[in-house]
Amino acid sequence: MTGDDATPGRGVSRRGLLGLVSAGAAGLAAGAAGGVGFATGMGSTGEGTAGSTATYPFYGDHQAGITTPAQDRLHFAAFTVSSTLDREGLIGLLSDWSAAAARLTQGLDVSETGALGGSDVAPPDDTGEAIDLPASGLTITFGFGPTLFEDADGVDRFGIAARRPPGLARLPRFAGDALRPEWSDGDLCIQACSDDPQVAVHAIRNLSRIAFGRASIAWSQLGFGRTSSTSTAQTTPRNLFGFKDGTANLKLEDRSGVDDHVWAGADDIAWMRGGTYLVARKIRMVIEVWDRQQRQEQERVIGRSKGEGAPLSGGTEFTEPDFAATGAAGEPLIDTAAHVRLAHPENLGGVRLLRRGYNYVDGNDALGSLDAGLFFISFQRSIDQFTAVQTALAGDAMAEYVKHVGSAVFAVPPGARDDGYVGASLFA
Amino acid sequence: MTGDDATPGRGVSRRGLLGLVSAGAAGLAAGAAGGVGFATGMGSTGEGTAGSTATYPFYGDHQAGITTPAQDRLHFAAFTVSSTLDREGLIGLLSDWSAAAARLTQGLDVSETGALGGSDVAPPDDTGEAIDLPASGLTITFGFGPTLFEDADGVDRFGIAARRPPGLARLPRFAGDALRPEWSDGDLCIQACSDDPQVAVHAIRNLSRIAFGRASIAWSQLGFGRTSSTSTAQTTPRNLFGFKDGTANLKLEDRSGVDDHVWAGADDIAWMRGGTYLVARKIRMVIEVWDRQQRQEQERVIGRSKGEGAPLSGGTEFTEPDFAATGAAGEPLIDTAAHVRLAHPENLGGVRLLRRGYNYVDGNDALGSLDAGLFFISFQRSIDQFTAVQTALAGDAMAEYVKHVGSAVFAVPPGARDDGYVGASLFA
Repeated sequence: MTGDDATPGRGVSRRGLLGLVSAGAAGLAAGAAGGVGFATGMGSTGEGTAGSTATYPFYGDHQAGITTPAQDRLHFAAFTVSSTLDREGLIGLLSDWSAAAARLTQGLDVSETGALGGSDVAPPDDTGEAIDLPASGLTITFGFGPTLFEDADGVDRFGIAARRPPGLARLPRFAGDALRPEWSDGDLCIQACSDDPQVAVHAIRNLSRIAFGRASIAWSQLGFGRTSSTSTAQTTPRNLFGFKDGTANLKLEDRSGVDDHVWAGADDIAWMRGGTYLVARKIRMVIEVWDRQQRQEQERVIGRSKGEGAPLSGGTEFTEPDFAATGAAGEPLIDTAAHVRLAHPENLGGVRLLRRGYNYVDGNDALGSLDAGLFFISFQRSIDQFTAVQTALAGDAMAEYVKHVGSAVFAVPPGARDDGYVGASLFA
Repeated sequence: MTGDDATPGRGVSRRGLLGLVSAGAAGLAAGAAGGVGFATGMGSTGEGTAGSTATYPFYGDHQAGITTPAQDRLHFAAFTVSSTLDREGLIGLLSDWSAAAARLTQGLDVSETGALGGSDVAPPDDTGEAIDLPASGLTITFGFGPTLFEDADGVDRFGIAARRPPGLARLPRFAGDALRPEWSDGDLCIQACSDDPQVAVHAIRNLSRIAFGRASIAWSQLGFGRTSSTSTAQTTPRNLFGFKDGTANLKLEDRSGVDDHVWAGADDIAWMRGGTYLVARKIRMVIEVWDRQQRQEQERVIGRSKGEGAPLSGGTEFTEPDFAATGAAGEPLIDTAAHVRLAHPENLGGVRLLRRGYNYVDGNDALGSLDAGLFFISFQRSIDQFTAVQTALAGDAMAEYVKHVGSAVFAVPPGARDDGYVGASLFA
């Protein structure tokens, strides 16, 4: 059993466990139905709703939330550890977080005392807004930022500087970067994905609460629509440019592709084997300008048709692009600056990423434009893979319509053993 | 046929209309399945997903999105009209918005030329991110703010000052108000509710785009979990205090209650008959402090049990609270400052509201606290009803844990006729 197992287990309703039976048959039925079949997500994919009661194990060889079929909703949080936290304190936090995540992902309250508390006169352990809700495909994925290993002053707070993965470092500056510190970096991160936003928010809120005095949220991001499929059973969703996104993404069914491109292996530092690296980029889309472009221009920028998502070299969505194909006048059918060309593994020496990003809308800016875009997340066995892709995108025709405003990298340790905690191999 | 009809029609997939058949059988099946039964919403209610393909008519006696069974997701936007807009321009905008809303709510693109455009060299009319998605229970509700009738300088820009509803005015200042102008007021508003956030965002984005040069977004709010039921077929959801919210809400099945408390009648200005008034309040919850209270204190503040949602005077969730009931020591079982007591119609001379709010999380503040709370929306035949409730809540025990940071009121005209536009009676 691994944390990224594609087959969800039986759904467990928090309500069922609390024995609160009067709140309506509909909720009970949902709890009792269990997660049958595939967790395909709900909502933006229009794919039905088996995902609602899907549950994924927290413990396993790999952390869940990476190759797990991408759920529809995200709450991502980066944390700053307290300056008074020491090695034992950090281990304690990771242990507490692991125990809580193991329960939350099974649709349970954060602890046994739950939202009703062990006593009338104690604050409840669980904040309660998910009492009636099933696991909803929740996965919780933890990561360690570069500054956890050595802080800005070069201090090795936790005695782990020597075990820092060689490739774990802030990204270089890329063309078009307009990074804001308030959406960048972090000592720790938690990615909570679920088919129900209330379940994802509940997870981040309760894990943040557990961290009180030890770590606090530096920045966080809600995402409402997944922009990639990570399973061949999922349809390809659309990003806020209105195009299908992530057609050529790595899929969990491609086991050798995932092994080759996602999981850290024998060439990495020992404690990271079975782990991976997470890159997060907050990419603001200048959607009003984009919306004013003719469709032909939009398609030229992407390199695919807007409706079908087929490469402009012909075929259907899953036809491989033919970058050599030319039109009547000898012009390349897929523009030399098209996003699909520059980002394609064929033009990157085979480099691939597992993308797992989300659409976001953070209200609007002072000019009345929607503050919207893509919260890009990718997983890869080496951050160099992302750097190669982003470097190749320097001449991307899409660059005119996007602005990278946040950036962070994290080492994602292997999955926790059920008698251990996430990241235990780092401290072993 | 009325716009608030509780029975959804057959779902229509945008993809089906575009004839894009290769994008996966799952999506097509969802499109073809249609909205059977009741639109109970998805996700946070754990109630299954018939809502995914539910459709509600835009045209009708009343606007949809008021007594429509509350969908799970919200995108609300307040607009400022351009200083150059005149009466004909405003009518033109409302006409364009109505035509677009009639299509969007049926799961269609915003216009016939859609996301692929009428021509290769024209910008597409539709932004495209909902191409593959069904109607998802989308409703679009329009409102007119006090400043539409007379601007801050007292100018009657649109020749409608004399037709301003007598009760349409900014709310008085209440105890605990900490209102911020960037989340308050507006000349116009649009409430888009759907079971899929991407569909709600798509609606606001495209309606905002249609308004270009005529009106622009002043502020906007996403909500991820409904906090009220508006139908007896829905289970009661939980707010971010972890409590069931809106148990005693007006429900669409209570036709006489809705008629008495929601729809503007013969006592109002003629053009508003069949309309209603919308009050929006952005209520930040101080959730970290709340979470540190013992359950007994939380329950005292609310006046209900946390698990079941039963009044502290006894019974189950839907038992009427007994405010006279006392304990062994003669103390009232429901505290004199409990929220449920102060807000109850029994203590307000029978005043009731139809509540239709949403939980929100807007990231976090600089201290690492979640910037979270309730985006309260209520509908009532007179704004005085809200004022009475909020005035009574001055001594609310909950006041310690909430801060009202945004406020707006809008006249919501009756539904549009299918040969007219929303608000036509105002200009007739």
